[in-house]
Amino acid sequence: MDVTKDQDFDEWYNQVVEAADLCDKRYPVKGMNIWKPYGWEIARAIDALIREEMRRTGHQEVNFPLLVPESLFQKEVDHIKGFGSEVFWVTHAGDHELDERLLLRPTSETALYTVFALWIRSHADLPLKTFQIVNTFRYETKMTKAFIRVREIHFFEAHTCHRDYEEAEDQVREDVDIARSFFDTLCLPFLMHRRPDWDKFAGAHYSIGVDVLMPSLKVLQVASIHQYRENFSRPFDITYEDEEGNHHHVHQTTYGMSERVLGGIVGLHGNDHGIALPSAIAPIQVVIIPILFRGKEGPVEEACQEVERALTERGLRVHLDSRDKTPGNKFYDWELRGIPVRIEIGPRDVEKGAVTLVTRDGEKKQISRDHLGQIDDELAAFDRRITTRAQQFRDQHVHSLSTLEKREGIIRVPWCGREECGLEMEEEVDMSSLGIPYPEPAVEGTCAACGERARHWLSLAKSY
Amino acid sequence: MDVTKDQDFDEWYNQVVEAADLCDKRYPVKGMNIWKPYGWEIARAIDALIREEMRRTGHQEVNFPLLVPESLFQKEVDHIKGFGSEVFWVTHAGDHELDERLLLRPTSETALYTVFALWIRSHADLPLKTFQIVNTFRYETKMTKAFIRVREIHFFEAHTCHRDYEEAEDQVREDVDIARSFFDTLCLPFLMHRRPDWDKFAGAHYSIGVDVLMPSLKVLQVASIHQYRENFSRPFDITYEDEEGNHHHVHQTTYGMSERVLGGIVGLHGNDHGIALPSAIAPIQVVIIPILFRGKEGPVEEACQEVERALTERGLRVHLDSRDKTPGNKFYDWELRGIPVRIEIGPRDVEKGAVTLVTRDGEKKQISRDHLGQIDDELAAFDRRITTRAQQFRDQHVHSLSTLEKREGIIRVPWCGREECGLEMEEEVDMSSLGIPYPEPAVEGTCAACGERARHWLSLAKSY
Repeated sequence: MDVTKDQDFDEWYNQVVEAADLCDKRYPVKGMNIWKPYGWEIARAIDALIREEMRRTGHQEVNFPLLVPESLFQKEVDHIKGFGSEVFWVTHAGDHELDERLLLRPTSETALYTVFALWIRSHADLPLKTFQIVNTFRYETKMTKAFIRVREIHFFEAHTCHRDYEEAEDQVREDVDIARSFFDTLCLPFLMHRRPDWDKFAGAHYSIGVDVLMPSLKVLQVASIHQYRENFSRPFDITYEDEEGNHHHVHQTTYGMSERVLGGIVGLHGNDHGIALPSAIAPIQVVIIPILFRGKEGPVEEACQEVERALTERGLRVHLDSRDKTPGNKFYDWELRGIPVRIEIGPRDVEKGAVTLVTRDGEKKQISRDHLGQIDDELAAFDRRITTRAQQFRDQHVHSLSTLEKREGIIRVPWCGREECGLEMEEEVDMSSLGIPYPEPAVEGTCAACGERARHWLSLAKSY
Repeated sequence: MDVTKDQDFDEWYNQVVEAADLCDKRYPVKGMNIWKPYGWEIARAIDALIREEMRRTGHQEVNFPLLVPESLFQKEVDHIKGFGSEVFWVTHAGDHELDERLLLRPTSETALYTVFALWIRSHADLPLKTFQIVNTFRYETKMTKAFIRVREIHFFEAHTCHRDYEEAEDQVREDVDIARSFFDTLCLPFLMHRRPDWDKFAGAHYSIGVDVLMPSLKVLQVASIHQYRENFSRPFDITYEDEEGNHHHVHQTTYGMSERVLGGIVGLHGNDHGIALPSAIAPIQVVIIPILFRGKEGPVEEACQEVERALTERGLRVHLDSRDKTPGNKFYDWELRGIPVRIEIGPRDVEKGAVTLVTRDGEKKQISRDHLGQIDDELAAFDRRITTRAQQFRDQHVHSLSTLEKREGIIRVPWCGREECGLEMEEEVDMSSLGIPYPEPAVEGTCAACGERARHWLSLAKSY
């Protein structure tokens, strides 16, 4: 990178995603990038974590077609208003013009719900808990940015159907728990807000956004949870028969995430040497680097192989870097790619029956070859340290104020709850509303816009 | 199913794919089906087998954008001729007409090779061995059929680049080995042929097709391996610098497969009770069904749980079906879904310290609870039996003849090698050419069309 992270975060980010071998941005369609093998392996590790959360909570994986007929897409009015301007349209096949235009899903509500209406007959079919991991498409007109604002998106979406509003509310609470567990594993301290009505998902009854605060002091939405109530089940006619033979519309929720999660990890944990990966998703958790001196190669190479074998047997993802390069060049390569733990073994380590361990955040110690099990603790400690640092950064930049003032980061002020006051404040500080903190803390005082009694806290920030 | 497999294979097939919960064909775009959770789990298990083969042979996984600019697609003349009539075109985004039309990849040569030209600089970058598992699109005009002829295809494609023709030929031989290993694991006896020039992949130097013979006596191509020579590297300008500083075009190969593999498994191994899954990809390998008699539930339920635990500990995928249904209903459900082994436990089994084991192909025996390890052997024996049956079926229907005669299945005749003779024979028996058996057996006698000296065997068959 030819800028430091402090100097120019956005430029550093743009460079580090390619330098760390995550993606290649030279594909000749704007905003559509290539996942390189290393980046794709990390993306798949993140997917595996999501799948594990889905398994734990009884969601089933489906896979729906990419193309949605225009007539289906038109069914929910707010939804088409929200997404209509950013869909890609398929109009022809071969030399032939299609009878009905097809769009590339920007999200999959309209595709899934057409078929949910066929799958759900009685209360015994509920709750229906499904998810899919697919590519979605949005014709972004703003400047694109790897993982953060792209036109083809690696996307996760859970869709559920329930008997009534309360059961759907339980699902929202489960989703909040899933988000906590998932982002904790990824060392991403987040903020949750119930979005203001003027910024909820197109078609939702309400939306909860999960954001991380990036070093640029702009927030990045990394997940969202939506309560749809009957907003989609009415136009798509998704009903069930209850025990008494009465028919009702189902209540629905969704939970969505995307490759932005990786964008958050790069942004929060990287430094001028490269990215830093939480141990749960690092394709290589421990890299072993032989420090060779002429005439003493044998014992060092032997020790390296033995340590590799021992750690692999412990279930760690280990790589022994035997390339014909200097140790310094190897350090450089693996720091760039964010490997959590590096083990160096030289002749003096061999003599002492030890190895030298250096974590990606610079902690260095010697550990005995008899206690290699310690490396599990070192990985966990590394995860905790990068989490704590990001937490401190976030907490330093949340400003709870009683009156509106321009500050960098996130501003939190008492609010009467009226849209006009929210929009007025957005304009005054040139930020957008994140919404009401979730869960909602007690509020006292008066609205920072109109001076009437405050009913909520409202958070404002600049965002990606 | 309201027809038997013998009565009407194609109708049986169309019904069993939905009855076994693999897919739902009611999505409102023709030829684009929904993967249901069970079907998708099997598809992902097949993907995992492919990934294991790729790991073993040093291929790296990438993921490229779906959309290809028209100008890239036009670069290789034969390729556009072959696929031009069946691509979906994106012409608009939002309300805006795109400057350049984008197509949905029918296969990814043109997308990948644009960037391979940037990735490859020197001989040290070779061989480049990559693959991806993605959705591809073909506007099929023929009748669609689940997994076999669809418009959105779950697709696997390996792409490699090499120094010269011979190194690319080595890759073709490695691909042949991969196919052997992969289809053996899936219990799919196949036939390999070098396709005739008039039926090779659009742009290939030559193509090897891997086919299975379906019960309808039509062949289904389930994989293909292509030697491209420099046919793509020239228009896409993919060159490398050798040790002496000279520049050369790379030689390329591809290996492709799709969800057709699942179509082959359904077709070859299913029967009137449902599908039958090879143990390597069965989401459930062993289902345990309690046979309950009033007053004696306790010991049976206990025994079931204990067997479930013991088998799970052995690394098997086990499910205990405790639903409130009759054993007969449960047998029906799991046979439909193709579970290889069913274990029944009733009061008499408990008394004897045994379980009753029934395989999906109807073998029944009692085994002692002290020897549950035997179930590994039973699964392997089940795989061997379904493989052998399919092999026998295939071998019975390959007819090696010295003169052309109409036969059902696959006809193999001596051939002079000239296209006009091949086409003449295709017309005479109303079949298409599979090509020359690979590897090629010795041939004697005279061409079944023109009577001149034969140089090859030519196989002909009806195909999907």
